[in-house]
Order: sequence, then structure tokens, then C-alpha cells
Amino acid sequence: MDHGQWNCGKIFNTVRRRQPVNEQAAPGRVGDVRRRNLSLVLDSIARTGDSKPSRAQLAAGTGLTKAAVSSLVADLVESGLVAEVGLYRDGERGRPGQGLELSSRRGVVGMEINVDYLAVGLVDLGGKLRFSAAVESPNRDMRPAEVMDSLRELAGQAEAVAAAEDVTVLGGGLAVPGLVDERQNLVLSAPNLHWNHELLTPGNLLHGAPLGVRLSNEANSAALGELWYGAGRPDFLYVSGEVGVGAGVIINSDLYRGPGGSAGELGHIVVHPEGPSCSCGGAGCLETFAGQEAIFSSAGIAPGSLATRTDDLLAALAANEPRATRAVQDAGRYLGVALASSARLLDLEAVVLGGHFAVLAQWLRPALEASLERHAPGLLAPENLVVSSLEHSGTLLGAAGQVIRSVIESPFEFLLASKLA
Amino acid sequence: MDHGQWNCGKIFNTVRRRQPVNEQAAPGRVGDVRRRNLSLVLDSIARTGDSKPSRAQLAAGTGLTKAAVSSLVADLVESGLVAEVGLYRDGERGRPGQGLELSSRRGVVGMEINVDYLAVGLVDLGGKLRFSAAVESPNRDMRPAEVMDSLRELAGQAEAVAAAEDVTVLGGGLAVPGLVDERQNLVLSAPNLHWNHELLTPGNLLHGAPLGVRLSNEANSAALGELWYGAGRPDFLYVSGEVGVGAGVIINSDLYRGPGGSAGELGHIVVHPEGPSCSCGGAGCLETFAGQEAIFSSAGIAPGSLATRTDDLLAALAANEPRATRAVQDAGRYLGVALASSARLLDLEAVVLGGHFAVLAQWLRPALEASLERHAPGLLAPENLVVSSLEHSGTLLGAAGQVIRSVIESPFEFLLASKLA
Repeated sequence: MDHGQWNCGKIFNTVRRRQPVNEQAAPGRVGDVRRRNLSLVLDSIARTGDSKPSRAQLAAGTGLTKAAVSSLVADLVESGLVAEVGLYRDGERGRPGQGLELSSRRGVVGMEINVDYLAVGLVDLGGKLRFSAAVESPNRDMRPAEVMDSLRELAGQAEAVAAAEDVTVLGGGLAVPGLVDERQNLVLSAPNLHWNHELLTPGNLLHGAPLGVRLSNEANSAALGELWYGAGRPDFLYVSGEVGVGAGVIINSDLYRGPGGSAGELGHIVVHPEGPSCSCGGAGCLETFAGQEAIFSSAGIAPGSLATRTDDLLAALAANEPRATRAVQDAGRYLGVALASSARLLDLEAVVLGGHFAVLAQWLRPALEASLERHAPGLLAPENLVVSSLEHSGTLLGAAGQVIRSVIESPFEFLLASKLA
Repeated sequence: MDHGQWNCGKIFNTVRRRQPVNEQAAPGRVGDVRRRNLSLVLDSIARTGDSKPSRAQLAAGTGLTKAAVSSLVADLVESGLVAEVGLYRDGERGRPGQGLELSSRRGVVGMEINVDYLAVGLVDLGGKLRFSAAVESPNRDMRPAEVMDSLRELAGQAEAVAAAEDVTVLGGGLAVPGLVDERQNLVLSAPNLHWNHELLTPGNLLHGAPLGVRLSNEANSAALGELWYGAGRPDFLYVSGEVGVGAGVIINSDLYRGPGGSAGELGHIVVHPEGPSCSCGGAGCLETFAGQEAIFSSAGIAPGSLATRTDDLLAALAANEPRATRAVQDAGRYLGVALASSARLLDLEAVVLGGHFAVLAQWLRPALEASLERHAPGLLAPENLVVSSLEHSGTLLGAAGQVIRSVIESPFEFLLASKLA
């Protein structure tokens, strides 16, 4: 699976732009000034993406002097974050210049624990997904420590690819299907994994990555992956269809997390007031009609591995088997109810469908569109209802991308850790 | 109705803080510098609220020189926006200083058009609601021009009070129950008024107010009124119960409007997938169960004026009349479904109930709380489910407050208009 280059312009548009600071104006706080200007220069290199600016272009673009830019770029190149490429002339005059870009020799490992699989990927700073792998794993029947052991083994494959391709792994991002406290490496609640206040040690998943491993929510990471790399726009809702149903809310090109960090619980929007009980303790939630288990069960698909059950469901749908067809139509109809309600509340302009909603889109979509038209006519045009093309790699790209973004925002701290600042 | 002083600290916490600018550092752009510093000083006066800072305190707080502060304050006092009050000593040393506050001799008229009433209020810059009045008016059976004529007449009462109390009216805010384009004075859609792309001339409602009249959405204004003056917190949902049901979404002490400006359509969240048709063209919307008309109708209250029907409903509830009791319980139950869904999506921490939900709270609340506990157990604690104490004045305070806030943010433009800058 190779998704080519990221759309670099997108990921870095979400980093707050900074104003240049004149070092002489604030002689007592040179550290602060350098901190801001390093970020300004790195941000400018990242934003320009494919155009690979020269030092002179960076000076013109940032308002810093050429001497200042050269000194800052020297540190960034020495740290390995930035690479010099090509040789070209700035117009007719002047010496040949070298273009600058985020280095493809530095990378981040994206990782995902979901209910019935594990996945890893290697993403370089240039935005290329260089490697990805996924394995089925009955994670809800395993102890968290066992799950983490399996994931470390899989992550070792990504580290081996990195070593073979001479990419230094700076850190990792780990996405889980639950509410997390990333500062404390704590999974507060992941009902479908049966995890509750589970303290993890994600740093152990990689061998000596200086930035460690950052925990995140699966749907939020997939939404950010979609924003930076996929079908995302400045404002949209990413719908994650797994055993659980979740969503990432992107507002103004950034993730809306909510005051307590748990926004986007689309799976627990009430779609029928007399509906069945849900794993969350509530009743009538979308997940009870449109989660993976709910669909398999009401389609009459026999127990088995995720891949087998998915194949069985797709075969039954292809054969127009009535029970399977109705199960997926019901899921589409109730997804429409939840999206109608979400669109009313958030003023949604677009929705990206991921996970099993992407896999089942062909059969699900007519019922989903009819339901949206019935409950929120005219609000979400069919062309703004997009199927993700990233498959499971959206989550890996988003989990890794959050680590890359934090380096772009705070390169000084990275250089300090690398003893270069 | 007198709600005393605003909580000034709250309204002005939502104004972006500005950094002082040294005029000498940017001699070519003195206008810009003065613009920023005027706003900085006015903002500081507004934020400190009751403590009425002296010029010396403002200089210390803003980082500007005392001479600069004196010059800026002189303009603000001359414009009438700021008043000098009292005499006190700064500690033991120094000369007696004069405190500064937003002037109570300048005011804004808040106005509301709803389906079956009109309301106006006079709010001074100090935040006091000096006068308010409301009249029943069958607005959906009248042409918009007739409605505006009636409102102008009512606004005349506020202007007369202002004249009698020597308050200069700077401008007005007009709230309507629909989606508006405030820059074009256009009501895009107000289904319960039967207004569709209705171009208004709100400036005609007042006689010679220099800032004109600003159009806004009713639920959004009420939410801002609640944020600045009532039970609001940094993050909450204000629920407006009128003929229509709406909401204002407050995130991080500011209104979330959504990409198209129509966020918060709580009344059209789907609470039953097989529910009845709605005025919005959808089906199963909250408004069809919990809007004013829906409750009157299912409670069997005979047609009549709003006041009469409300009295009849309250009497029936007080007498434990089963049909009325069930109608209000149903409304509470479905409001619980919509709030459960909203809480899941937005990660809501608190809800403020306004309009008829506040009037009916005693009878509605048990069913509402039970519904929340059934569909989103533990998510919204009963103590975070607050009944508004502002009654209809919340909308007036919010509509006027938006105009006051724009003056605080841009005093230079106000001074220019007053030929003082």
C-alpha cells in the first residue's frame, strides 16, 4: 500500500503562523526569539511543500534577514529535520541556490490498536507512507499488556523497514478506540475493548525513538489523517466504522475535542428512543444498529474472524441475500438519522465515511441518502458525502501526523533534546 | 424587570486581548497604533468592571506610558464611551486619582421579533437593563413591513426612556428566530414566521443611532446574553423554547456559528425516526414534540393568545390534568433524547434551558432527567442542567451586548464616526 506524497500544504496550514522576532529588539531573551524563529522557518519550509524554497525565498517570505535564515537552517539541517535538495538559479541573477524540504530520512511510526486488529505504518517527514502492515488480533479477549506485546512485535517490522531504508524513527503515534488522556498515557475508557482506566507504556513500543509515542483517539486520528492526506476540507465530520462507531469533528482545519476531550461520539447519538441497550449504558444508540457487530449479527453472518465475516457479508450482499441487504440498509438509514442530527447541530458541510462504512458504501449509500433527504432535506448534498480512500491507513497517517505536527510547532524543543539548540 | 448590573468581567473576557504597541517603533502607522491602543485601554476598563481603574493602574496593566494612557482616555471620555467616577488615593502615596468605567450615559436598544410577540429593552454600556417591554403580536400573520412598523413603535418607548434618563442611544440589536445574514440585513429563512429571504431595514427602527441596528439570530443572542449576564460558563448549550426550538452553542466563551452560520438547530435533531413531518421539511424533529405549539396542541389547550394558552397550560399542570401532564412529560423526554445526542457529539458539560422550557421546568424536568439518564447515563449531571433566570430579557441583553462588544473591540471606528479619532 503506497499513498505517495502527503498533501503537505494541508497538514501545515493547521499550524498557527508566527511572526518573526528581531533578536536585537529583545536581547535578554535570545532563547525565546530563536525558538520562535526556528518554528517560523520550519513551518515555512513545510507549508511550501513541493516548491522547496531557497534560503533567500525563506528570508523574503518570513521577513528575517538572510544571515538569520542561514543560521536557523544550518541547525535544522544538522538536526536532520530539513534536507537540501537540487540546485537551481533564483531567476537570472545571483548564485545557484539549494532548495529545502522536510527530510524523508526522518520518520514516525503510526500504530493502531482496534477491537480485532493491530496496524502499524512508517511515515516519513516528507509525508510518504513507506510501509504498513495489519494483523487480526482478538484484542478484547487479551490483557492490555499482551496486546501491547503483539503491537511491539508488529512495530518492529516498521523499525526494520526504517533501518533498511536509512530512515531514523523520531517517535510514534498510537491510536486506540477510546477516550484517552494523552499526557498521562491513560486510556480512560474503551468500552469495545473492555478497557477502563488502563495505564499504558507506549514508549516501550519503539526502540529508542527520542520523541516517544503519543496516545490518541482512533476516530480523531483518522479524521486528522483525512484532513491532511485524504478527502478532508476545512470543516467536516469523519465517520469511523469499526466494532464501535466514532467520529472526528474537524472545524476550521483543526480537531474539535470538546471541553472534556470526548467530542464526536457519533456512535452514541440516539437514533431510536425505544432502541436496544448499548455497551455505553445508554439505549437506542447508532452503534446498536450500525456498528460492525450489529450489522454482522442482524445480517446473520456466522461468527469467525473479521476478514471471513467481512467476506461472507460482501458475498451475501453481492447475491442480494435479503437479510444481509436489509441489515446494511438499516445501518445506512440509522446512520442517516445520526448524520441529520449532527448536521443540524454543527452546521456540517461534508462527511467522510471510513472503516466498514467505506467498505459497504455501495450497498449502504442509497438508504443513507434517502434517510438524510427524509430527515434533513437539502442539508448534506450527496457530493459532500465522500467515501474515504485511505482505508485503515488514515488512522496511521493521522496518529503519526500529530507527532510530525508537534515537531513543526516546536523544533527548538526537538533540537534541545538532540543537543543542537 | 431590573436585572441590576451585568457581570462585566464575563462579556469582555470574550474580546481578544491585544498587545500594546509603541508608537515610536512604527512611526509610519500611527493610526494603526492608536487604533490598537484605544481598544486595549477600553478593553482593560471594561474587563475590570466594578473595580474602576485609574489611569495609573491602566498604564501599569497595559504596559503603555502614563502619558499615552492619558491621551487615549481623554478621547474615550470625550466620545462618551468612558466616564470618570469617584475620587480615591492609590495607596498612601501620590495624588488622588479618578476611576474610569464604561459610561452608563450611553446605551444600546435590544429588540426581538418572535412568532407571537415583540420585545425591546434599553441596555447601558455599564450593563444595566434600564427598561424592557414586550407585546403580543401575531407576527406570522402580518407582512414583515407591518411587523417592523409595530417594532419601531415599541422601540420608541425605549428611546423615550433613554431621552428621559439622559442616555444617548448608540445603536441597536435585533434578534429574529431564523437564519440571518447580518451584513446584508437579510433573514435567509425563518420558517415559523413564514419569512424567506426577507430583506429588512433595521436601521429605521431607531432615530439617528450612529451605529445602526445589527441583525442576529434569537437563540444565538439569548445564548450570548446567558454567557455574559446569566448562568453561562465557558462551554454550554443554551436551549431556546419558543414556537420553534433552537440552541446557541457556546464553545470556549464564544458563539459557535458553524461554517454556514446555522449551527445549533436543536429543534431539528431527529428524536424519533418515525416521527411526524416538521415545518423544516424533515421528519421526527424535536420541535414536533417539544415546540410551544406541539405542547399546547397535544395538551389539548384551546387556541388563543400566547399568554392565555400559557396560563391555561400551567393551570392544567397545577391540577394534574393527565393530557397536559403527558404532553409536557413527552416534551421533556424528547428534549432529553436531543440533549443526549448533542452531549455525545459536542462533549457538552452544561445546558441552560430558556423560553417555555424555563417556564415549564417544574413539570418537564423529571422526564428530561430520566431521559438523559436512559440515553446518556452520567454525561450531564442534573446540577449542570440549569434553568435560565433571565426570561425573555436574555435575548435582548445578548442582541444589545453584541453591539456593545463590537464597540469595545473597535473604539477607533466609533471615534472616527464621531469625528474624534
